Amino acid sequence: MPLEKVLAHIDADLDNATTRLMELLRLKSISTDPAFKQDCEQAADWLVDDLKSLGFAAEKRTTPGHPMVVGHAEGAGLHVMFYGHYDVQPVDPLDLWDTPPFEPALEETAKGTVIRGRGTSDDKGQLMTFLEACRAYIAVTGSLPVKISMFFEGEEESGSPSLVPFMRDNKDELTADIALICDTGLFGEMVPAIVTQLRGLLAEELVITGPNKDLHSGMYGGIARNPIRILSSIITGLHDETGRVTLPGFYDGVPELSDEIRSQWQNLAFDHAGFLDSVGLSVPAGELDRTPLEMIWSRPTCEVNGISGGYEGDGFKTVLPSKAMAKISFRLVGTQDPEAIHRSFVEYVNAMLPPDCTAEFPLGHGAGASQMSISHPAFEQARAALSDEWPKAAAYVGCGGSIPIAGHFKEILGMDAMLIGFGRDDDQIHSPNEKYDLESFHKGIRSWARILAALAEGKK
Amino acid sequence: MPLEKVLAHIDADLDNATTRLMELLRLKSISTDPAFKQDCEQAADWLVDDLKSLGFAAEKRTTPGHPMVVGHAEGAGLHVMFYGHYDVQPVDPLDLWDTPPFEPALEETAKGTVIRGRGTSDDKGQLMTFLEACRAYIAVTGSLPVKISMFFEGEEESGSPSLVPFMRDNKDELTADIALICDTGLFGEMVPAIVTQLRGLLAEELVITGPNKDLHSGMYGGIARNPIRILSSIITGLHDETGRVTLPGFYDGVPELSDEIRSQWQNLAFDHAGFLDSVGLSVPAGELDRTPLEMIWSRPTCEVNGISGGYEGDGFKTVLPSKAMAKISFRLVGTQDPEAIHRSFVEYVNAMLPPDCTAEFPLGHGAGASQMSISHPAFEQARAALSDEWPKAAAYVGCGGSIPIAGHFKEILGMDAMLIGFGRDDDQIHSPNEKYDLESFHKGIRSWARILAALAEGKK
Repeated sequence: MPLEKVLAHIDADLDNATTRLMELLRLKSISTDPAFKQDCEQAADWLVDDLKSLGFAAEKRTTPGHPMVVGHAEGAGLHVMFYGHYDVQPVDPLDLWDTPPFEPALEETAKGTVIRGRGTSDDKGQLMTFLEACRAYIAVTGSLPVKISMFFEGEEESGSPSLVPFMRDNKDELTADIALICDTGLFGEMVPAIVTQLRGLLAEELVITGPNKDLHSGMYGGIARNPIRILSSIITGLHDETGRVTLPGFYDGVPELSDEIRSQWQNLAFDHAGFLDSVGLSVPAGELDRTPLEMIWSRPTCEVNGISGGYEGDGFKTVLPSKAMAKISFRLVGTQDPEAIHRSFVEYVNAMLPPDCTAEFPLGHGAGASQMSISHPAFEQARAALSDEWPKAAAYVGCGGSIPIAGHFKEILGMDAMLIGFGRDDDQIHSPNEKYDLESFHKGIRSWARILAALAEGKK
Repeated sequence: MPLEKVLAHIDADLDNATTRLMELLRLKSISTDPAFKQDCEQAADWLVDDLKSLGFAAEKRTTPGHPMVVGHAEGAGLHVMFYGHYDVQPVDPLDLWDTPPFEPALEETAKGTVIRGRGTSDDKGQLMTFLEACRAYIAVTGSLPVKISMFFEGEEESGSPSLVPFMRDNKDELTADIALICDTGLFGEMVPAIVTQLRGLLAEELVITGPNKDLHSGMYGGIARNPIRILSSIITGLHDETGRVTLPGFYDGVPELSDEIRSQWQNLAFDHAGFLDSVGLSVPAGELDRTPLEMIWSRPTCEVNGISGGYEGDGFKTVLPSKAMAKISFRLVGTQDPEAIHRSFVEYVNAMLPPDCTAEFPLGHGAGASQMSISHPAFEQARAALSDEWPKAAAYVGCGGSIPIAGHFKEILGMDAMLIGFGRDDDQIHSPNEKYDLESFHKGIRSWARILAALAEGKK
């Protein structure tokens, strides 16, 4: 049976696979910061070269932002399109990293060996699980078990501005029978999961200007508007005392959970006390009348992701600043419309604004939530394959994060997407000291090999 | 008459005086930032050398922070102690400066020639008006008209941590008949002013910690406390809808204006529309039932001078941060007690804090307000001398800023202080593009020469 040989090859080749991943991790592909443009190009080139070494016809494609990587290999039967992203989050605050973020290394921890560094879990380590499964198939059998295309983006962590135009312009080339996305996690420590419900995201930046220059607070304090105080009251007013978002129309399109999903999620026995305890908290915040898992997977939120204004350095400066800025994001569910919510946010802010102050909204882009249909037989084939690899059976779950690509695949290309990943809750993605468990990497590669075998076999 | 000769010498020597000031301005004596420690030392050394060149017995005195400069010269009659500070405010945001802040230059503007650069008005330019008046007296008469001591501080812009201990330790040496302080401004464009009422200042830094690390807002948003949102609601709750500060006990010790002072201030016909218009605003903020001048000179305030948390760079990062920080200051009047208000602030914050979050208060130091007695005959002598120099008669005024030294002179050394300065409202102190009018510098030197002559003559 070729699958057994492929799995054995994966086990034997793990050190080499890890070395290859480290090479990709060393490239500082921070997409949101223009200073790292060249590093993003290098990561795209690295992937093109690696795909070519696997026999793919692969190319770097330019966009107005960072390049896309597209590759195709021949194969029989089902045609799958694998998506991943090679860009990573910024690394600040740098002083909270125990090791340099772009010098990845294996590290022994109480919970096993981890690969430490920016992008290990989100998403380079996950992306490479699929490439390594393909590499093992080719090494053992000389070919791939199904027809495979690859599509890698370099702007996922910065709002994917080039993604939709690129997909529209290359519709035929990017369409396959089903999409595979590896940017999610296990449920808990050991339950493999296929995500079928994803929240959307509306990202806003709000810049308030009061006086036209920085002022002395002794001279102008009180009588001149302070943009930090205006911004604070705008942020405070976004939630009521029950934790609900106050924007008019915000809850339009937010569905209640079906009894079936609710009972399925209850069966997962989510340990919200442990979830909070792992980050030093003990009291759930958010909507008072919702369960924690419901809030994370199926309720919309509004959070402040950054704030800045006035003097932020050591010591004190009695300045009354001209400007203050906040980055505010909304997670969306159901059919909540990002454009309508952006308009409602703008109206709310303008109504809170004193007449001689101004507000700017330099971002305001977003994508709605996604709900997968699981009618394609690939879903059950993949679920069975995952259950074979892991100690517990695979589950269909929701996801608090936003992976707009899944919705785009459906909307633009008419493809269903299977979101399967091997990250863990303590991977610290988007934070200092990001890691990916070596076990996630190893069993992730094995999982994809099993899934490809199951898709090739085609049984339900 | 020697005064006429001294004034003529001042006029003839203005270019040289300006060149000397530029030398001092080029020293980057930012006291709040430890990176500029050496620059502060250099500014102190420069002043010691300059005082020695005037025949003063001058020394740099070490403190746990930046050094003090103390100098004494012999002279007959009244003994005056002149105070100034050689440290300056930070220069950020640097990109808003039209010229480098530490490369001072003369600049022609629509309103006349200005000296542009950090510290020109606050306080190096003002400090040098007094030294240049002394220099002119010595050049013309060979001696000073009264007995003069000098006392320069290097920590005025960073809360003066070493000042009170130094004054206590050197009480005898620093005591004179009256203190002169040059760190204030004209009233309007042309009315010379002696400040007799100064607000106090309580400076707070508030650091809120929620989760013990930065989190992904898709995973933890809603359910985990966001320290930026907690901080925003704390800031918002500090004022009620009428603009009053809500801290319990905050208004204890805030006096109402006497009818006499109120009518004197009404006679000043303060142009609050112009005051706001010059900074791009039109609607007075603050307490609804108070006049603008009352708010600036005689009412307490609470302002936010800086805020920081989460991702502040370009683009977007969906982080839910562990910490958020604000710098908050209270201006105090009457007998408001900074220690009692600090305690009230701490209690207020702790009451607003969710049980699994923490607050830190790394600063919390302050000084109360000052009210000068004007019974010493020097006040009326100085007022007459100022009225001779300027086109309008000098006025006794209040000041929104906080110059705790005046209170310390009274409390520790038993001296009254005369606060006389030549800054203008548009000097942009504490802001980018700080300037000092060449006319302020020139007529400031002449004003001090006249005041010294009047104090020497001793007539009422």
